[in-house]
Amino acid sequence: MMITSRDNELIKEVSKLISASKYRKKSNCFVAEGVRLCRDAASSGALIKSFLYTSEAAEKYNEELCIISKAAASSAEISRELYDRLSDTGSPQGFLCVIDMNSTPRLNEISISGKYAALENIQDPSNLGTILRTAEALGVDGVILSEGCCDIFSPKVVRGSMGAVFRLPFMQVKSMADFVRIQTSSGAVCYASAPRDAEDIENIDFSGGAIMLIGNEGNGLKEETISCCTKRVKINMKGRAESLNAAAAAAILLYRLLS
Amino acid sequence: MMITSRDNELIKEVSKLISASKYRKKSNCFVAEGVRLCRDAASSGALIKSFLYTSEAAEKYNEELCIISKAAASSAEISRELYDRLSDTGSPQGFLCVIDMNSTPRLNEISISGKYAALENIQDPSNLGTILRTAEALGVDGVILSEGCCDIFSPKVVRGSMGAVFRLPFMQVKSMADFVRIQTSSGAVCYASAPRDAEDIENIDFSGGAIMLIGNEGNGLKEETISCCTKRVKINMKGRAESLNAAAAAAILLYRLLS
Repeated sequence: MMITSRDNELIKEVSKLISASKYRKKSNCFVAEGVRLCRDAASSGALIKSFLYTSEAAEKYNEELCIISKAAASSAEISRELYDRLSDTGSPQGFLCVIDMNSTPRLNEISISGKYAALENIQDPSNLGTILRTAEALGVDGVILSEGCCDIFSPKVVRGSMGAVFRLPFMQVKSMADFVRIQTSSGAVCYASAPRDAEDIENIDFSGGAIMLIGNEGNGLKEETISCCTKRVKINMKGRAESLNAAAAAAILLYRLLS
Repeated sequence: MMITSRDNELIKEVSKLISASKYRKKSNCFVAEGVRLCRDAASSGALIKSFLYTSEAAEKYNEELCIISKAAASSAEISRELYDRLSDTGSPQGFLCVIDMNSTPRLNEISISGKYAALENIQDPSNLGTILRTAEALGVDGVILSEGCCDIFSPKVVRGSMGAVFRLPFMQVKSMADFVRIQTSSGAVCYASAPRDAEDIENIDFSGGAIMLIGNEGNGLKEETISCCTKRVKINMKGRAESLNAAAAAAILLYRLLS
């Protein structure tokens, strides 16, 4: 039976999951929207609690429909009108999954030979999504997020990450400074991306394991966090002494870390 | 006298300049919004035809108000209500300039020892803005844009570029392939960012002048354009064989070009 009513319990739930970070945390679920993201969720083994689709999308993306329906605990058709009202994208494709957060990969321990990105208070969802996508493409082993980062399970981050949230292990930490203290004391090398008195990333040997710390869009890393790191590093900019966008800076830093 | 009416000719003009690329081209003007962008316009020597501000903004940013008013051919106060209706940003700051396109820097010739970014059909305004900002920060000498790129003077690009449009010389070309043909025949080195059968950017000596070609978000560079280039290059990705976001890829490519 097709869902057409806004008063349907599942629809009310999806709507809250899309708009409210608090509700996502409470219910331990999030929403992935779009054909590709839903298929990524299915193929990555994420636990899909509900799969909603419009009849137009079911016809157009039949192969994906089969894969996702098979992986989902429950599936239901929903009217186009209701879907468009729910969706937070400009051009809704008609596929939407409710996913159990706990079924996405977590980073449980830091390996001394691994390469990691640690993000402190990245606030813009587009930036966080792009950084996760970049980290996955370049081959980072995992991502550490401070509590002050925007919600990794917000629809914008999930979309911007191109599904990296389904595959790239992450860890959330209360205090980045405490995390860095613990890591350096067990022998990990932590680089603070912080331009002042810093070494040019071109002069650093990144052949071993390391954690690259990247800070907030406007303010960079906290002084306390920087002071716990092994070394300050910077991107040498020949142009106007103007900071790069956080996602562009992260791309360069992580590229050097991994190359 | 404060402007309060939507029927005011200047307001109608600004509204069209914000929303319509065609109208920008026709009138050779564009709009820069926000305190920082307007100040950047003034300090870069761009020709500011009209400067509009709310009384709240005038009070809050008095120093900037003086600088911008001095540079502007005309200035006028506008009601907060009207400003908020005009603005296309989420949190309008109350400063807006109408700028003469022809007063921003153009790239008139390519120097054999210079470093350039050539962008073919970059379609997303956020990506184009970020790439311009990155290009300026890293010290690129100029940018070449194909006709298929989104409008460099759209409010989103101007904002995302953090004012790079006021300082970074650019050139628009009808056909990128033709441009590349001409450049290579006069001895310039053109690198096509195109993953297939390409050389890893780590193995390339970028010490001389060069033009780095970057293609469309979904489709990359056109085959014809690639075939005119000196060499195909790629970013070595250790992770999932998944392409980077266009702006992240451009950051890495331009960083290597300039470092």
